[in-house]
Amino acid sequence: MTSIAVIGGGSWATAIIKILSENNVSIRWWLRDRAAVDHIRKHHYNPDYLRDVRLSPRKVKTFTKIADAINGAEYIILAIPAAFVQEPLSGLTPQHFAGKRVVSAIKGMIPTSNCLVTDWVEDHFEVPISQISVIAGPCHAEEVALEKQSYLTIASTDAACAADFSQLMSCRFVTANPLTDLYGVEYAAVMKNIVALTCGISHGLGYGDNFQAVLVSNAMQEIRRFVDAVDPRERDLSASAYLGDLLVTAYSQFSRNRTFGNMIGRGYSVQSAQMEMKMIAEGYYAVNSIFDMNKKYGVEMPITEAAYKILYERQPPAAEIGALKRKLR
Amino acid sequence: MTSIAVIGGGSWATAIIKILSENNVSIRWWLRDRAAVDHIRKHHYNPDYLRDVRLSPRKVKTFTKIADAINGAEYIILAIPAAFVQEPLSGLTPQHFAGKRVVSAIKGMIPTSNCLVTDWVEDHFEVPISQISVIAGPCHAEEVALEKQSYLTIASTDAACAADFSQLMSCRFVTANPLTDLYGVEYAAVMKNIVALTCGISHGLGYGDNFQAVLVSNAMQEIRRFVDAVDPRERDLSASAYLGDLLVTAYSQFSRNRTFGNMIGRGYSVQSAQMEMKMIAEGYYAVNSIFDMNKKYGVEMPITEAAYKILYERQPPAAEIGALKRKLR
Repeated sequence: MTSIAVIGGGSWATAIIKILSENNVSIRWWLRDRAAVDHIRKHHYNPDYLRDVRLSPRKVKTFTKIADAINGAEYIILAIPAAFVQEPLSGLTPQHFAGKRVVSAIKGMIPTSNCLVTDWVEDHFEVPISQISVIAGPCHAEEVALEKQSYLTIASTDAACAADFSQLMSCRFVTANPLTDLYGVEYAAVMKNIVALTCGISHGLGYGDNFQAVLVSNAMQEIRRFVDAVDPRERDLSASAYLGDLLVTAYSQFSRNRTFGNMIGRGYSVQSAQMEMKMIAEGYYAVNSIFDMNKKYGVEMPITEAAYKILYERQPPAAEIGALKRKLR
Repeated sequence: MTSIAVIGGGSWATAIIKILSENNVSIRWWLRDRAAVDHIRKHHYNPDYLRDVRLSPRKVKTFTKIADAINGAEYIILAIPAAFVQEPLSGLTPQHFAGKRVVSAIKGMIPTSNCLVTDWVEDHFEVPISQISVIAGPCHAEEVALEKQSYLTIASTDAACAADFSQLMSCRFVTANPLTDLYGVEYAAVMKNIVALTCGISHGLGYGDNFQAVLVSNAMQEIRRFVDAVDPRERDLSASAYLGDLLVTAYSQFSRNRTFGNMIGRGYSVQSAQMEMKMIAEGYYAVNSIFDMNKKYGVEMPITEAAYKILYERQPPAAEIGALKRKLR
């Protein structure tokens, strides 16, 4: 029985727990919301996300203190939006992480420092990079709940680490494959939210499917240029972890990033779109992080730049997408 | 004034005429349907396709005999489904094509000989390959009719030939870019219909967006393996002409190939799906042509093979997609 702590109470955390529960594991689940914990203990369903997913009381224990949840766990899975991951972990020290493997299920960068979640875990909690992996791949949590066949990629710099966790994340309806391109997968996962957001802006402005297909094709080239600059190595960007992940986000009507972008395209301000949605689109922060990082690399990134000008310099979306239009091909 | 013959009366032919009419051209349009010709002459709209597109009577002349339409034209654009292109051109000889450039707007292969339309034109009408190009790129005709920003790629082995025709196909709402990878673009355009069809089958069987994203990612790899085997050269398959074209087809609810596949997945026989749709999905023929061609190349093509077994060997879709599922990653 592998003991796994899961940190976070959202739909992706719930979906991951459903997948893990198909295997021989013991899950130690921390959720911030006390009412949710009580509900799960009593009814064995998450009251807020994927409400149809039954949570096995034999395999899933809930905790209200993070230190208790990770106590004795072999793996710690982080499944909190990047913008909010620091605060709940602030009471933990490297001691708490000693000898444990960490898995990031977060697709975003730490906004205050513009660093990857895995880099932050390595620096902050002194976890060796070989013991860190990320969960990527095209996967709506909602389809996992419905047990629709899905694929995940587990990326780590250490092949054995990736392979071990891939086994735990594979089950009847999920195939998880290991990959050693940790940084490429992580940056691509961050950038896909920028693309989905820009697809949303274009759609909100009235651009159609022809335009979106070209935008996504150009985005794949922009992602390649960027990851090749940041971490040059052989990689096949048409693999599911990169292209597939981008597609499931950019073509989803339910993507928060696409919805947020759509509101911007239709004329909402950033503030009112955020208020209206009552949640944060991770792409909003990703735009700033990647734009800022790229000051160092100087890669040609017309899509990220257009999104940056619209979201952070308050340039009119119609003018910026109009200028972007002339750079695509 | 460039004189251009357009052969075919469907929605893509109508969209091409709309684009060309934005430039200084004289269009000589052949349609098979006499009633459509009469209607266009009287009302300046195509009664059957893109009915909102006004056809300038000054720029567009209709013809009922192909030989008359191509008489004096500098370009001949073929816009008839591949399965039906031979018959109307059967009265023409190499003489008719002498000194003219030919543009294929057809995304398919000649079913009886499994050869590309451009190869057939080269062989049959003795047109030098340098004078032949294809129109590719992600482009729903319906969005051209609405003047939504679209992008096309004009591919020819001859850079000047591609560049000249790109100019004619660029206008206020369309950007056409030249490319010299004639065969890569043409095979990718044929294969994308196989992918859209297989996406449709999967959807009909109940597979979701997670699965489709992985299917499309794997399809990009299958397309690359095949075109690299048939015509090895440097090419960026994430360009709009390849990836973009695949996306606009695979993610369109309106794609005939996807719709046809969806009916197969839901249990229709090939014959009843064809009867129900009252039109031919080009992917149906493409599956046979590419499968047959690949006997020579022996490329690993699990997606094309699954489609072949379902469509031509009457294997149950659920079993074949189930077997394909285990080959994807």
